[in-house]
Amino acid sequence: MTASSEVPARKLTPKGLATRERIIAAAAELIYEHGAQNTNNEQIREAAGVSGSQLTRHFPTKEALVRAVLAWQADYIVARHQAPELGELDSFAALHQWADSYIASQDMLRGGCTFGSLAAEVVKAEPSHRDAVADGFERWQALFRRGLSKMRERGELRPEADPAALAHLLTAAFQGGALLDQAAADSTPLRDALYGALAYVESFAVEG
Amino acid sequence: MTASSEVPARKLTPKGLATRERIIAAAAELIYEHGAQNTNNEQIREAAGVSGSQLTRHFPTKEALVRAVLAWQADYIVARHQAPELGELDSFAALHQWADSYIASQDMLRGGCTFGSLAAEVVKAEPSHRDAVADGFERWQALFRRGLSKMRERGELRPEADPAALAHLLTAAFQGGALLDQAAADSTPLRDALYGALAYVESFAVEG
Repeated sequence: MTASSEVPARKLTPKGLATRERIIAAAAELIYEHGAQNTNNEQIREAAGVSGSQLTRHFPTKEALVRAVLAWQADYIVARHQAPELGELDSFAALHQWADSYIASQDMLRGGCTFGSLAAEVVKAEPSHRDAVADGFERWQALFRRGLSKMRERGELRPEADPAALAHLLTAAFQGGALLDQAAADSTPLRDALYGALAYVESFAVEG
Repeated sequence: MTASSEVPARKLTPKGLATRERIIAAAAELIYEHGAQNTNNEQIREAAGVSGSQLTRHFPTKEALVRAVLAWQADYIVARHQAPELGELDSFAALHQWADSYIASQDMLRGGCTFGSLAAEVVKAEPSHRDAVADGFERWQALFRRGLSKMRERGELRPEADPAALAHLLTAAFQGGALLDQAAADSTPLRDALYGALAYVESFAVEG
């Protein structure tokens, strides 16, 4: 650990942890709105209500803060996909409810996927960002794989349905659709992409 | 037009136009490799073999250069989709050939889609970037809409096939799959996403 490294979260006091969380939440909101490249320390400091030295103590570099925001946004998207009303994403109804909860959202037009839009912005910036992006996508995709596997085990999907492949289609359609929505300021691309992907998943349904 | 605006391309001499093209091509390659945020004037100047004043004369700001690279990459992706071997993207064979030409590409793992990865990086940076991104996606999607419309007109796709909706699914699966590939350093997500999307398109095929 070098002198300029951030203080590991596990060594923080409760108050220090709360400050760290406040900084990450403020940075996450600003970055979602304007992009990481258009968000500076001064804005984050003000939004979080912390001093420059507090910010630097927790996050000595912008890279360290972006990594923390990536992890925070990944936690958020994983938690959102585990909301009680979505069950374990293991029914056609739950998958449609998942899709509709995003298609209806003004946030998708404003800034795309909370995790994916930052992921796409910074994935090339440095190897540790790419690792954090890969980790977030993997945790998110695992939820779909698990739900689809359960449906297959229960005989609701035919044996030839491949949960990993279908999870790739659903998550790719989501990320691509979110980018197209954001660019076009129109919610049609994401709707078409998700409904098409879901119809393909349903083509594996066992009749009756 | 302010004093600091770039020289409009239409007012350039042939030599000036060639210099402008060389700068854009060099910037496009560097940005594709490292991202716009990690590419600076010095690197672009060196790669293009131009002086600092030449660079500034053509592109007074980084934003102006990024806009030019976005337009250049949009032209490239549109041209690539009009390659003779893809016909007019108006057959299942052509659509599969299109998908396979990207799935097999090492570039997708290295840097994702040449247009889409930059689009996703800069779409939030400023309104003029978002406009350029929207324009590029629209031109690209129009090629799929046209091909699918021809297939429907010829009776190869059933009347209920919606070319615009299917074009959204194909392009979203492509952009999302490209991002997932890049993050995972694995070509499976894009393959699964495109094959799934194409299978859904084929579900509208007229039998016989």
